[in-house]
Amino acid sequence: MKKIRFIAAMAAMVMAASTAMAQKYVDASTLNVQGRTKPSQENPYFRVDSEGYDFAEEHIVRYCRYPVGVYIMFKTDSHAISAKWTTAKRAWGNNMTPIVQRGLDLYIKKDGVWTFAGVARPSMTKDVHKYTIVKNMADGEKECMLYLPIWNEVESLEIGIDDDAAIEAIPSPYKYKVLTLGSSITHGASASRPGMIFTARMSRSTGIDFVNLGFSGNCKLQPQLARLIADSEADAYLFDAFSNPSVKEIETRVADFVRTVAEAHPDKPMIFLQTTIRDQATFDTKWAKFNDERRATVRRMMTELAKKYDNVYFLDSDTITGTDHEGTVDGAHPTDMGFNRFIDTWLPKIEKILKKYGIK
Amino acid sequence: MKKIRFIAAMAAMVMAASTAMAQKYVDASTLNVQGRTKPSQENPYFRVDSEGYDFAEEHIVRYCRYPVGVYIMFKTDSHAISAKWTTAKRAWGNNMTPIVQRGLDLYIKKDGVWTFAGVARPSMTKDVHKYTIVKNMADGEKECMLYLPIWNEVESLEIGIDDDAAIEAIPSPYKYKVLTLGSSITHGASASRPGMIFTARMSRSTGIDFVNLGFSGNCKLQPQLARLIADSEADAYLFDAFSNPSVKEIETRVADFVRTVAEAHPDKPMIFLQTTIRDQATFDTKWAKFNDERRATVRRMMTELAKKYDNVYFLDSDTITGTDHEGTVDGAHPTDMGFNRFIDTWLPKIEKILKKYGIK
Repeated sequence: MKKIRFIAAMAAMVMAASTAMAQKYVDASTLNVQGRTKPSQENPYFRVDSEGYDFAEEHIVRYCRYPVGVYIMFKTDSHAISAKWTTAKRAWGNNMTPIVQRGLDLYIKKDGVWTFAGVARPSMTKDVHKYTIVKNMADGEKECMLYLPIWNEVESLEIGIDDDAAIEAIPSPYKYKVLTLGSSITHGASASRPGMIFTARMSRSTGIDFVNLGFSGNCKLQPQLARLIADSEADAYLFDAFSNPSVKEIETRVADFVRTVAEAHPDKPMIFLQTTIRDQATFDTKWAKFNDERRATVRRMMTELAKKYDNVYFLDSDTITGTDHEGTVDGAHPTDMGFNRFIDTWLPKIEKILKKYGIK
Repeated sequence: MKKIRFIAAMAAMVMAASTAMAQKYVDASTLNVQGRTKPSQENPYFRVDSEGYDFAEEHIVRYCRYPVGVYIMFKTDSHAISAKWTTAKRAWGNNMTPIVQRGLDLYIKKDGVWTFAGVARPSMTKDVHKYTIVKNMADGEKECMLYLPIWNEVESLEIGIDDDAAIEAIPSPYKYKVLTLGSSITHGASASRPGMIFTARMSRSTGIDFVNLGFSGNCKLQPQLARLIADSEADAYLFDAFSNPSVKEIETRVADFVRTVAEAHPDKPMIFLQTTIRDQATFDTKWAKFNDERRATVRRMMTELAKKYDNVYFLDSDTITGTDHEGTVDGAHPTDMGFNRFIDTWLPKIEKILKKYGIK
C-alpha cells in the first residue's frame, strides 16, 4: 500500500513537472520580428509606420498598427510555450473568431514543414491575456514561428518558456518577399486563426514571404497607398485591389495607381488579382449588378494596363471561392475553406509569374 | 439642370424603395420549426425537453435549450428578409465566430438547391439583435430555411418581410431523419455560421435530415443520453461518441450504452464514428499518448460490439480532418475546411449503410 502511494505521488510529481513547470518570460520584441513593411519606433509590432503618408482614412492609420501577418522567429528547448500579451481597448468584430482577432498562433518546424502547434486564446473581457499554447513537448530544440493577432494592436508580448530552458532569435525562413496589398480578404477576414490568413498560408507552402498589407474596407487605389508600395522594397508585389473601390474609383484611379507602382519598381512583377464574386449577390440583384459592372471594369482597364507595362500582370477568374456559395462566413469574407479555394485559384498562376523572375 | 435633379431624386426614391421598404414582423414559432428532437412547452426553439432525464451535467441541460441545427421553414414573396431576435445573457466563446454563436443563417432554394442567401449578425454588446439578412431580391416566391444560433438560447425570434408581402410555413424538405449524438464537433464548434455545422451540411447535400444532438464536452456515453436516444424515434442514429469520454469511461460504459440504443431500435442502423486525431497532439506527447490509447480502445471494443449487434456499425479512419494539421481553429475543433474533410471521410460510408435500410 505504501509502495502504491509512493508511486502515485511520484507520478503526480512527474505529471506536475511536465505540465506546470514554472515559466520565465522573454520580451518577444528582443527576438526576430518578421512580416513588417516599415517598422515603427512607436511599437515593435506595427506593420507600417504610417507617418508621412497623410492617409485620409483613420482606419488605414489604425490598421497600419495591427500586426497582421507579423510573426516572431525563435528557437527554444522548452517543453512548454506560453504567452502573456496585451491588446488595445477595441470592440469585437462579429464575423471572425476572437482567436484570429486577438489570439496568437504557433507553428513549429517538424520534418522540415512548419506545422501547427497551438493557439493562445484571448480573454473576452480583458485586454491582458495569458495562455499556455503547447505543453508536454519532447526534449530537443524547436524552431518556432508565432503569428500575432490580425484585428487589434499588440501593446506588449512576452513568450513564456520553462525556467531552465533557453530561447533565442532565428532568421526568417524566407528568402524572397512579395508585398501583398488588399482589402479585408487580404487583411484576413475571416480566417479562423492568425496563421490561416492566405498570405501566411502561401508563405509556408511556397517558402516565399507574402507580407501582408490588407486594409479592410479601405483599399481603394488611393495615391497614398500607391506611394507606400512605391517606397517599399520587395521582390514582387501582389494586389487584391478591386474588392473595395467603386466602379467610378476604379475608372478614375487605376491608371495612376498602376503607373506609380509599376514605374517605381520597373523590374519587379506587379500581379493584380480580379475581385471575387460576392456571395451576397446570389439573391441581391443590386449587388449582382455591381459585381458584374465592377468586374467588367477591372477586366477592361487591367487588360489594357497589363499591355502597357511589361511588369504588370492581370489574373482573372470567375471561380475564386468556389461555385457552391459555401466559402464565406457572411457572403463576403472567406472562411478557411474559402481561402483554400482562393489559394487553389490564384497560387499556381502567381507562382508561374514569380518563377519567370527567379522567385521560387 | 432641373431635369438632372429630377432624375437624381427619382433614382434616390427607387433606391430607397428597394432597400428600405417598411418591414412587418412575424413570430417565427408560428411557422414550421424543424430540427428538434423533443419539443418543449417552455420555448419553441429548445432542441430537447430535458425534463425527466435527470442529467447530472448542468451543461447538458443548458445545451438542450440551444437550437443547434434547428431551422425555420417558410415561403415568402418579400424582396427583403430581416430578423429581430433575443438571446440569453451568456459569455462569448473565443474559438467560434459570434455569427455562429448567436447569429442566424438563411438558405433559399435556387434551381432546386438550398443556397446560402445571407446571415443575421448579432450585437456584440446586447442580447437584442436586429439585422437585414438579404434585400433587393427579384419578384417571386422564395422557399426559405433559416438556421438558428448554435451557442445560446433563442428567447424570441421575429422574421421581417416587406409590408405588402406574404409569409407562410412550408413542410420540411427532408423525408428521413438521422439523430446525431456527439461532442463539440457535432455541436458545431467551430463552423463559421449555423448552416455550416456538419449535420446541416450533410442534410442539405443528401436530402436526409441529420438532427443535431451535439453536447459540447459532455457526450460521455452516459446512461441518460442512451435513454434519450432510446426514447427518440428516427430512421437511423449516428454517434460521434468517443471525443469526450476518457479511456476508462469508454471501457466501463460503452457496452451498456450500445446495448441500450441497439435494443431500443433493433431495426434501425446505429453508426458509430471513430474519434478524430486531435491536432493538439502533434507536439503534446501526453495528448498523443491519450489519442492513441483512446482510439485503440474504441477500435477494440466497437469492433466486438459491431459483431454482436446486427444493427451496429463502426466506422474507423485515421485521416478524419486531413493530415496537414490545418483543419482546426485550436487543435481540437474543425473549421469549415476541417468539417469539409470530416464529411469527405465519413459521408460516403454513412450513405452506404443508410442505403441498405432504404434511407436515401
